[in-house]
Amino acid sequence: MDMTHGKPWTGRVFIGVSLDGFIARSDGDIGWLTDPPQRQHASINSSHQAESWETFFPSVDHVVMGRGTYEKVSTFEEWPYTGKKVLVLSATMAGQDDRVSVVRTLDEATDALSQGDARQVYIDGGQVIQAFLRHGLIDELTVSHAPVLIGSGIPLFGVLAHDVHLTLRATHAHNGMVHTTYDVTTSCPTDKRN
Amino acid sequence: MDMTHGKPWTGRVFIGVSLDGFIARSDGDIGWLTDPPQRQHASINSSHQAESWETFFPSVDHVVMGRGTYEKVSTFEEWPYTGKKVLVLSATMAGQDDRVSVVRTLDEATDALSQGDARQVYIDGGQVIQAFLRHGLIDELTVSHAPVLIGSGIPLFGVLAHDVHLTLRATHAHNGMVHTTYDVTTSCPTDKRN
Repeated sequence: MDMTHGKPWTGRVFIGVSLDGFIARSDGDIGWLTDPPQRQHASINSSHQAESWETFFPSVDHVVMGRGTYEKVSTFEEWPYTGKKVLVLSATMAGQDDRVSVVRTLDEATDALSQGDARQVYIDGGQVIQAFLRHGLIDELTVSHAPVLIGSGIPLFGVLAHDVHLTLRATHAHNGMVHTTYDVTTSCPTDKRN
Repeated sequence: MDMTHGKPWTGRVFIGVSLDGFIARSDGDIGWLTDPPQRQHASINSSHQAESWETFFPSVDHVVMGRGTYEKVSTFEEWPYTGKKVLVLSATMAGQDDRVSVVRTLDEATDALSQGDARQVYIDGGQVIQAFLRHGLIDELTVSHAPVLIGSGIPLFGVLAHDVHLTLRATHAHNGMVHTTYDVTTSCPTDKRN
């Protein structure tokens, strides 16, 4: 059992982002990420491969997402989370969907995770990731930088009360994407802000 | 002569940034970048090393910076740009400093570069980088991501009229920093925005 941060589950982020830090355009479009133009990107070998989706996704048992991500995923032809417990964190979402549990607050989410035998939790969506980061609930961060600047959109990261220090675990590049996995370090021994 | 983008000089960025996209805190502090806490970062080998400061800096003949960067650099004990022509892009800066030329507009800057036999131009500072990017004047971008989220500060990137597509040239990690060099691609054949 991973007792990182005193909780019985590991909070993990795995997300694609433009080099300027957006997870989607303001209208939710992610075509720049999923359908990029072909370029002659360098073929680069690395000694430490970042987490890959193929190993990451099967390893998670719970998913927490926000309403925006839920609504996006609901438009997909196939529900991608079969076999996972899915929590949607939304103060206002109405409607019924037996595939998910709606939780209204971060506390409700963490209670549901603790009571639901969560071990490996995939935290997804900008606002949810930001909320979990602010509360020290993220243990691992895999960020995949796409080779594009889109200028505006939905940001991955947001305001924090304290610096969040990261420990580099692995990085590699593939098809122009730079994938990097960090461990989140709880203590901030040399944070110089008041 | 590099005639990239129809100009006789190559615009190059080499900059450190927090993983959440800031080049400094709001008060200009970069201690999180220059004096990070010690962590057990993975030691990673890569087949394609990004541009390094040791080869980048000697190769540039001109530097363009904004007033913020100029004022920061002016506090250093030693002027770091001896042997380079330095342009400070500022609409309002007063005062005299024989080490730099002040230009008031982007057009004035590009005129000065063209008339000054510029070949390899180091573009520095958030606002100046953003202005040059918006006008298609950056050819190469080396971004070094520091393993920290600082939550707020002076952003590296800003709003763009069009996507800026990048071609990955190299990436490597050292001491927790992930250094990545891109070529900026002028044409945007599959930009799907109107």
